[in-house]
Amino acid sequence: MSKPPGASIPVGPSRRAVPEGDDRERLICPDCGFIQYDNPKIVVGSVALWHDRILLCRRAIEPRAGFWTLPAGYMELNETTVDGAKREAWEEARAKIEIEALLAVYNIPRLSQVQMFYRARLLTDEIAAGPESREVALFAWDEIPWRELAFPSVRWALGHHREIGAAREFAPRGNPPGETGARL
Amino acid sequence: MSKPPGASIPVGPSRRAVPEGDDRERLICPDCGFIQYDNPKIVVGSVALWHDRILLCRRAIEPRAGFWTLPAGYMELNETTVDGAKREAWEEARAKIEIEALLAVYNIPRLSQVQMFYRARLLTDEIAAGPESREVALFAWDEIPWRELAFPSVRWALGHHREIGAAREFAPRGNPPGETGARL
Repeated sequence: MSKPPGASIPVGPSRRAVPEGDDRERLICPDCGFIQYDNPKIVVGSVALWHDRILLCRRAIEPRAGFWTLPAGYMELNETTVDGAKREAWEEARAKIEIEALLAVYNIPRLSQVQMFYRARLLTDEIAAGPESREVALFAWDEIPWRELAFPSVRWALGHHREIGAAREFAPRGNPPGETGARL
Repeated sequence: MSKPPGASIPVGPSRRAVPEGDDRERLICPDCGFIQYDNPKIVVGSVALWHDRILLCRRAIEPRAGFWTLPAGYMELNETTVDGAKREAWEEARAKIEIEALLAVYNIPRLSQVQMFYRARLLTDEIAAGPESREVALFAWDEIPWRELAFPSVRWALGHHREIGAAREFAPRGNPPGETGARL
């Protein structure tokens, strides 16, 4: 953005230092002393089924535009994880879903992300691409485009959903052994 | 902090507006266009036992200084939820713990918090107050200071731990019906 002539450029939280009473470096604004605490972000999503078919969305945006993903995204302020997963299904696939159980909690420490996927059911089979999706579709297990999945955790969540089957009381799955989500 | 005479005060992300392609207001810096995406924060903690006794910490800091809590705190960048829970047990109670299972996921939407508590075991009974604790102690169930607990979710996690007992495969609990963590 253009700046009025002579205006100083605000630097914002740009100095790395350990605040008093803390034990690690934070970004601090050298002008006003504001401390920026950055923390991991939560991604909420769902493996949502209509009968035996799984809802996937082909991404219209980067990263991984053109690849298939589960409806999922960053949790917003003042919502719950369940409401966030429902909102993402609506935003990305215009899908109305009912949450059944917490399927998995994945950690991607490189990205400072915690991803929470729910097992869910579509309330109707009316789906449509939202603004971040190129298309949306319902896939039977043997139709899933495995080589065109957007992220490792999409593959994990699909596998864990299959593994859990119809179990009603189960512990949510975590990252597969040795997998950190660092690459596909 | 004092400002040099004549220096402009950097305003930082202070203007509320909906960025292009977004659907909700964010804080935007009117000087440089920086968009601040605020998302919920994750609290990680544990119900950690030495035989049948539960580790609690009496808080040395606000909020709720002087009240008892489970070892828990904000997850840091580039760590996993499990590592975060272990780190908090060490920082607050100098306790070394082993994580067994995800006990509960609580949502406190008013605070934009997701709290994840693990069931854990102390590896030794050597514990000591860390800088944020006034004292630490191991409590049998009927010794728990129920009226001096710091937060609703401490009470929830203790109750859910008791309810789950020795079960090995269980779904993590959520907020008790109707409870949002808004008050004690």
